[in-house]
Amino acid sequence: MPKLLLEHATVVTLNEEDEILPDASLAIDDGTLVGVGHIPEDFMADERYDLAGLVVMPGLYNAHTHAAMTFARGYAEDLPLDRWFNERIWRLESALSADMVYWGTLLAIIEMIRGGVVGFADHYFYMHEVAKAVQESGMRANLAWAVFGSEAQEVGISIPETISFVKQYDGAASGRLRALFGPHSPYQCPDTFLARTAAVAVRENIGIHIHAAETAEQVQTSLDTYDMSPIEFLAHRGLFETHTLVAHAIHANDVDLAILANKRVNVVVCPSTHMKYGMGVARVPEMVASGINVALGTDGAGSNTALNMWREMRLAVLMQRQAHGDAELLPGCAPLHMAGPHGAQALNFHSSGALIPDNTADLIVVDTSAPHFAPTHNLAASLVWCTEPADVRDVMVAGTWLMRDRNLLTVDESRVVKGFTAALESMLAAQQSQFRHYDD
Amino acid sequence: MPKLLLEHATVVTLNEEDEILPDASLAIDDGTLVGVGHIPEDFMADERYDLAGLVVMPGLYNAHTHAAMTFARGYAEDLPLDRWFNERIWRLESALSADMVYWGTLLAIIEMIRGGVVGFADHYFYMHEVAKAVQESGMRANLAWAVFGSEAQEVGISIPETISFVKQYDGAASGRLRALFGPHSPYQCPDTFLARTAAVAVRENIGIHIHAAETAEQVQTSLDTYDMSPIEFLAHRGLFETHTLVAHAIHANDVDLAILANKRVNVVVCPSTHMKYGMGVARVPEMVASGINVALGTDGAGSNTALNMWREMRLAVLMQRQAHGDAELLPGCAPLHMAGPHGAQALNFHSSGALIPDNTADLIVVDTSAPHFAPTHNLAASLVWCTEPADVRDVMVAGTWLMRDRNLLTVDESRVVKGFTAALESMLAAQQSQFRHYDD
Repeated sequence: MPKLLLEHATVVTLNEEDEILPDASLAIDDGTLVGVGHIPEDFMADERYDLAGLVVMPGLYNAHTHAAMTFARGYAEDLPLDRWFNERIWRLESALSADMVYWGTLLAIIEMIRGGVVGFADHYFYMHEVAKAVQESGMRANLAWAVFGSEAQEVGISIPETISFVKQYDGAASGRLRALFGPHSPYQCPDTFLARTAAVAVRENIGIHIHAAETAEQVQTSLDTYDMSPIEFLAHRGLFETHTLVAHAIHANDVDLAILANKRVNVVVCPSTHMKYGMGVARVPEMVASGINVALGTDGAGSNTALNMWREMRLAVLMQRQAHGDAELLPGCAPLHMAGPHGAQALNFHSSGALIPDNTADLIVVDTSAPHFAPTHNLAASLVWCTEPADVRDVMVAGTWLMRDRNLLTVDESRVVKGFTAALESMLAAQQSQFRHYDD
Repeated sequence: MPKLLLEHATVVTLNEEDEILPDASLAIDDGTLVGVGHIPEDFMADERYDLAGLVVMPGLYNAHTHAAMTFARGYAEDLPLDRWFNERIWRLESALSADMVYWGTLLAIIEMIRGGVVGFADHYFYMHEVAKAVQESGMRANLAWAVFGSEAQEVGISIPETISFVKQYDGAASGRLRALFGPHSPYQCPDTFLARTAAVAVRENIGIHIHAAETAEQVQTSLDTYDMSPIEFLAHRGLFETHTLVAHAIHANDVDLAILANKRVNVVVCPSTHMKYGMGVARVPEMVASGINVALGTDGAGSNTALNMWREMRLAVLMQRQAHGDAELLPGCAPLHMAGPHGAQALNFHSSGALIPDNTADLIVVDTSAPHFAPTHNLAASLVWCTEPADVRDVMVAGTWLMRDRNLLTVDESRVVKGFTAALESMLAAQQSQFRHYDD
């Protein structure tokens, strides 16, 4: 790989001191940052980039999504969560194909790259297709094959199959891919299945990505069934003994927070979904105070409608301030950390995130020269509150540019739109014929 | 003015039936819509525009802002409202100049046009400068000169001066300007001043734009002082007898809602500000149910940080669904109506808003072909949840294009940025010298 030198940028490091370096350089060798501000004397760049007047900051990590679900964007709006799923989404998903997952994921990847996302944690079906899309695009991703039960379903897979999926992809694509288990949730997976998953995960050192404590009803059902909250139950069944991502965790009680902190569980909140479906407010300030790594996710386009991490950053702040009537919650760079370094951590990429030496060169260039940024009294606030996806000029993952000057370099947009449109037409036709009788 | 024919567009009318017309035409004569869908047989277009594959919808009306305050963007973040004002904003505003208001407003106008805003209700100082900026830009606006007390202050004006300001501008710029009174609020204006303002407003048929019921403390103070809520007090002093815009109205009780409905007061909620400063949740669903016209505002960039009405639409929905745990609140086109036709109504432009015959041709063209819109299962949802300012391609006010293909036609962006930067430097220097002693 060529050695790269990015020069004269304003570098927002998101290091532990939140340092912002004016007119600074970044040296990149073999996909790794070898100099941030201070460039090693013997560093000989093959390519130099003058980024005067531009901001370089860590790329964003979308720590919980169902990328392929772009096919359901706007398909089930203004419905309570149960009707959203039962009346609309699962009926559409019953006609899901590998093809739809491949094209849907690529469409999501386009939207994410264009919005400054460098990595995502995906939780879905037909994950070989997702891996293929990720590899083609040059993105970073953490892949979980969603399983709803103890036995293989039409679109799920068995534990042995999951193990071979994980072994095939964990660490693949020069380390840009991680793979782990994806048991759906304590309410969708039987007790014994979860315990088996946990045992295998510990034995094989495989991570787990799971949903939990999304609604108050789920918590009540768990209490009624097990006399334990969903978080307590998962801990008790051993699900938190490896690298774990818990999506949502909205209705966590004090004991749950202590468990999550103690077990170093990564919690991913999805503000758009939580607000849009009136699911409740995750206890983010308390989680952060407990030392829990809290990251942000867009969730799928079927609920969120968009895959825009700038929105999620802002909503993460706004929903807490609304809920607590406190204008000082999650100030300054806090949301940038949640979307950046905390996200990398949640995705189990421990050498990604902040722009510090020895981390992977996952970064974005933001053009803050547009009038909607003027003036810049406070750069962190400008980035959080003013940036729209269109302001992201360039995106780099592990030293490779995925977008330059808003042009995608690894994905052919028109090819993807064409493939996506054809796959969606097939899925809608299949779904219609399947449910014709049912609707009569 | 040339007669215009816009052809082959998907027209989102926001009429009473929320009709969406595929492959439809719009005929515009002398700034007025003379045909929507059905084009009069004798209509001879001077200019024709093929808008195949594009969406035409009503422009957005920002119904409460302090446009010039772009100068304070990011200047006072992460502070409670009282400290935001007392420690930061008023100290900056103490050095305010006519020049700063002119350039700050033009900068705001650029951001607003680029985001699809066709009109705004402004509440600020040096309003001759704002009128000048609006006239140059071709926008529509409703201007209120903010007054804090009974006597003229350095940056306020007296009632007689306000009357001549209103007479000069109300109906000016071929009807694109309206002007009215801007007493700041019941908590910043003495009782007698408000009563005098109301008396003059009724006698001269002048509207009123005022802030009220922003915080629980303000309501308590009003109850302690007058034994009336701020809304009751304003009603009692006669402030609701002409066209009235009340900004915020967060802490309105049931009696207040009945008053606002009965007096046909226009309520403007500013979701970003309400959430960011933890001010509370306006009772929008109940207001709507009471028949109150509820519009949306960005408030100033000093609090919001942005002037993006797409965000305000989404936040208006999300904040209610979060507060009430109800995913069905403000569904479908509801937020589009709040930002569009309801905004025009609040600005006292009763022949603007929906795309229906005889209304002014205030419209925007949205390009929904980008991947972040695909697929379009539900166009209203796509517009609400997917649109970013950069997706607005063209903007027209009263039959005149203000933006075409993202190029501003009435405002010179580089000239404005230059003028703004110089004015801001002068203001910061003046403010620094003024407060040097104070800070010591």
